[in-house]
Amino acid sequence: MNHGAMNHSAMNQATDRFLALVGDVPASTDPATIRRKSRDFYWYSPILREQLDGLQADCVVTPRTEHDLLAIARAARQSGIFLTARGGGTGNYGQAVPLRGGAIVDMTGLDGLVWLRGDVARVRAGTNMLALDRALRAQGRELRMFPSTKRTATIGGFVCGGSGGIGSVTWGGLRAPGNLLATRVVTMEDEPRAVELRGPDTRIVNHAYGTTGFVTELELPVEPAVDWCDMAVAFPDLTQAARFAHLLATQTGLQKKLVSVMDCRLLPYFAPLRNRVPAGRALVILMMAPAAIEPTRALIAREHGELCYSCNTAEAEDDPGHVPLYELTWNHTTLQVLKKDRSYTYLQTGFPPADALARVAALAAQFPDELLTHLEFLPMEGGMSCAGLPVIRFTDSARLDKIMAAHDAAGISVANPHVYTIEDGGAHRGLSPDLAADKRRFDPAGLLNPGKMRSFEALAGALDGAPNGAGRAAES
Amino acid sequence: MNHGAMNHSAMNQATDRFLALVGDVPASTDPATIRRKSRDFYWYSPILREQLDGLQADCVVTPRTEHDLLAIARAARQSGIFLTARGGGTGNYGQAVPLRGGAIVDMTGLDGLVWLRGDVARVRAGTNMLALDRALRAQGRELRMFPSTKRTATIGGFVCGGSGGIGSVTWGGLRAPGNLLATRVVTMEDEPRAVELRGPDTRIVNHAYGTTGFVTELELPVEPAVDWCDMAVAFPDLTQAARFAHLLATQTGLQKKLVSVMDCRLLPYFAPLRNRVPAGRALVILMMAPAAIEPTRALIAREHGELCYSCNTAEAEDDPGHVPLYELTWNHTTLQVLKKDRSYTYLQTGFPPADALARVAALAAQFPDELLTHLEFLPMEGGMSCAGLPVIRFTDSARLDKIMAAHDAAGISVANPHVYTIEDGGAHRGLSPDLAADKRRFDPAGLLNPGKMRSFEALAGALDGAPNGAGRAAES
Ligand SMILES: Cc1cc2nc3c(=O)[nH]c(=O)nc-3n(C[C@H](O)[C@H](O)[C@H](O)COP(=O)(O)OP(=O)(O)OC[C@H]3O[C@@H](n4cnc5c(N)ncnc54)[C@H](O)[C@@H]3O)c2cc1C
Ligand SMILES: Cc1cc2nc3c(=O)[nH]c(=O)nc-3n(C[C@H](O)[C@H](O)[C@H](O)COP(=O)(O)OP(=O)(O)OC[C@H]3O[C@@H](n4cnc5c(N)ncnc54)[C@H](O)[C@@H]3O)c2cc1C
Repeated sequence: MNHGAMNHSAMNQATDRFLALVGDVPASTDPATIRRKSRDFYWYSPILREQLDGLQADCVVTPRTEHDLLAIARAARQSGIFLTARGGGTGNYGQAVPLRGGAIVDMTGLDGLVWLRGDVARVRAGTNMLALDRALRAQGRELRMFPSTKRTATIGGFVCGGSGGIGSVTWGGLRAPGNLLATRVVTMEDEPRAVELRGPDTRIVNHAYGTTGFVTELELPVEPAVDWCDMAVAFPDLTQAARFAHLLATQTGLQKKLVSVMDCRLLPYFAPLRNRVPAGRALVILMMAPAAIEPTRALIAREHGELCYSCNTAEAEDDPGHVPLYELTWNHTTLQVLKKDRSYTYLQTGFPPADALARVAALAAQFPDELLTHLEFLPMEGGMSCAGLPVIRFTDSARLDKIMAAHDAAGISVANPHVYTIEDGGAHRGLSPDLAADKRRFDPAGLLNPGKMRSFEALAGALDGAPNGAGRAAES
Repeated sequence: MNHGAMNHSAMNQATDRFLALVGDVPASTDPATIRRKSRDFYWYSPILREQLDGLQADCVVTPRTEHDLLAIARAARQSGIFLTARGGGTGNYGQAVPLRGGAIVDMTGLDGLVWLRGDVARVRAGTNMLALDRALRAQGRELRMFPSTKRTATIGGFVCGGSGGIGSVTWGGLRAPGNLLATRVVTMEDEPRAVELRGPDTRIVNHAYGTTGFVTELELPVEPAVDWCDMAVAFPDLTQAARFAHLLATQTGLQKKLVSVMDCRLLPYFAPLRNRVPAGRALVILMMAPAAIEPTRALIAREHGELCYSCNTAEAEDDPGHVPLYELTWNHTTLQVLKKDRSYTYLQTGFPPADALARVAALAAQFPDELLTHLEFLPMEGGMSCAGLPVIRFTDSARLDKIMAAHDAAGISVANPHVYTIEDGGAHRGLSPDLAADKRRFDPAGLLNPGKMRSFEALAGALDGAPNGAGRAAES
């Protein structure tokens, strides 16, 4: 563990001072709680596992109100301790792992729907996404998109650490204009305060890993609730599955929420499907609206697919004995494999719309034993394309680099999930043009989730001799 | 007027026999009614005006039920008279003009919502589309798409004679799979009957001008009602307007129902806008969902557009003193011009997604004085593109042919609106692969809307000496 510029006992003193300053805000120094709340799903990556294992905070605070959060922000400024926001802790890149101790700020106490007006909802950032979707459904609405971690993730964590998911085949990524209308943010300025960021200004916090402020509320477009239907369709091979998925994804007349493609070798890891789909078949997983079911069946028949499984999505979601098919897709695909076999890891890639299918086939052919194709269709650059979340048999990081380089060479962008800084990792589009400037403005002392914004760390190091321990966690 | 194989008095006798056979089905031989119900909007085309002016039916029948319609079908088979279905009579290609007399079958008596179940509605074909949209809205739903003639057109006429419209920017054309689920059709077989056509089988009647049967009911996907907002945005020139429209149309995060582009010279014909938009500006007309308004405004500002007008669509639609902006778009654009100046006509074109904007600019430059650009954005071939409905200053048909040839040469498809047969005209995609075979099956005696299906007429002529007067109307 590395606490930056402070030594261990100074850090303990600072934590004590911080806890005294936050007053009656619920706080914990219970070691088990701290350990649990300091981790996320970084262990997907054997590389991050080595770098982040064992890193943890010194305490956990759980604000109940924005007022509590402002008290926490002020106390941190006064005591100089680091703060790392945490939602559901489902991030894959160690986004929520505190690199230099300090306090975990558990945002799940700030939850609930603030209001719903027509097709716009205002929600508190710590709201669990399944609970939120259910609250919306009670009023005839639903989330436009959600990660496959809907059961555990928070809406604030999704916006600050995620990129898209179920719904993106129709609505695009989380950062496409219109998918996030506004955020309310508690800053770490000299005088911490809550500010409203609207429209393009939301980029300051969008996918910023909580390095620029705490999101307390979000305003989102919400869709009329649809009674979705899960479908699993089998094809003799990956090429046919991918072609069908692309065809279906471009059918403007068919309302859909999910179009995924899976290599036949993934099937054994999919409990709800493995006894229903003949072995050796490539899979297409769909979520379709009721009115689209009959025409989708007609299209499946015409394209010689076999509909092996269908089920009402909400029923599968509500029944503890069932798994909604979306929990086999997006980053859950890798999880299903990892549950049984830790020798796998994954990548995140983006196929340009032109020749996407040809590129998919070429890549699969190039790494026949190591790369298990997994595609999520979504619109990109004005056309329909797909993201890849291939499951990769891991040997070592040099080999992983080679596989990434092969993607690069084939014109397929890679969002490296084996790094924990914003700039090196996930999001390559739609981020704020100058992250470090945003951070200097909202978190001038650099106390929020230290070490995660490389451009700021570099700057801080250059300016005043790494007061915040810039870069040290990475060396530890 | 030409009654095909029968002479005038034989025709009168046949009509009398027909009217006796239909019994108590409401019928009229009032000359003014016949004249009015024998016309549609073919007069948009100076070429069709010459060919179709004066053609009319011998009587009008108005079935109240499917039972009435079956009686009409049987009576026509027994008396040998021609039948031409008519909805709102808003077709642009003389689709509803009887080329060889006989009876107009006014379908507007078969109206109303049969049922609404979730996202699917079953409706009677003669239902006026505005009335239908209102009935759906009363239950929280709305039409997925409608023509700009919503106020006057019927849903059956739209399916049998139209191609798409407001809503197509999101859902694609009327013939995209999933936009029409089923139709119920009264045939003209030896024993007329009602049959249900589902899914791909609906192609038999889709855009078939009523030549293959009478549609009595339709099953359609219907969308959750949205409180749309009309917006008119001005740009310094057409290129900027088209670029913005394309950008907006490809924004997956912004829910929209209409994206149209208008040459600045069309502005003087647009009553609701001409005093609100500075002269000389190219226009983009939009219908956006409430949640999309703020991000759309942000995009307009970023792209240096000027939002000159905005208004709630439903309010404009309900207020007799107002015009919803969609009544300036699709085929209404030409109508607004024709109301003031009959020297114009129009074309219908389809731009392939690749380089659509460059092709638009090239075409406009090639005919700077004659072609007033008008674009409607909609997805095509898996990408976002646009249809053109350019307003054309008419000189003669040779010149019009030249302008069409220039489109062809530039790789822009033309759906010629100056012909009255299915094959020569409007729809080039999604039609039944063998129209004549469908017609032989459902209308073996060739009594339905004679002269409109070229492939059948040719066949009939070859087989038995043009018993139905194939091709004669065109000579008249
Ligand atoms: C099995 C699995 C499947 C997944 N599927 C998807 C998927 O489909 N799509 C996708 O995009 N991601 C996916 N992810 C990644 C992750 O689930 C999402 O990013 C998720 O939305 C994170 O939410 P969370 O509440 O768990 O956030 P956390 O992991 O708790 O936090 C994420 C980041 O945001 C910060 N943060 C959290 N809350 C706030 C706040 N209120 N204010 C400021 N900063 C905050 C944290 O500091 C952290 O940097 C998946 C991960 C797993 C393990
Ligand atoms: C100002 C204007 C704007 C327009 N805008 C659009 C537009 O946006 N999009 C578009 O696609 N079209 C448009 N059109 C063309 C026309 O409005 C549409 O095709 C319209 O939907 C036709 O409906 P209708 O009820 O008026 O049909 P009609 O004109 O009455 O009939 C159309 C055809 O269908 C047949 N028919 C009608 N009802 C039945 C039935 N129940 N069974 C079998 N056959 C039947 C008729 O015989 C005829 O051949 C426009 C036309 C005008 C004049």
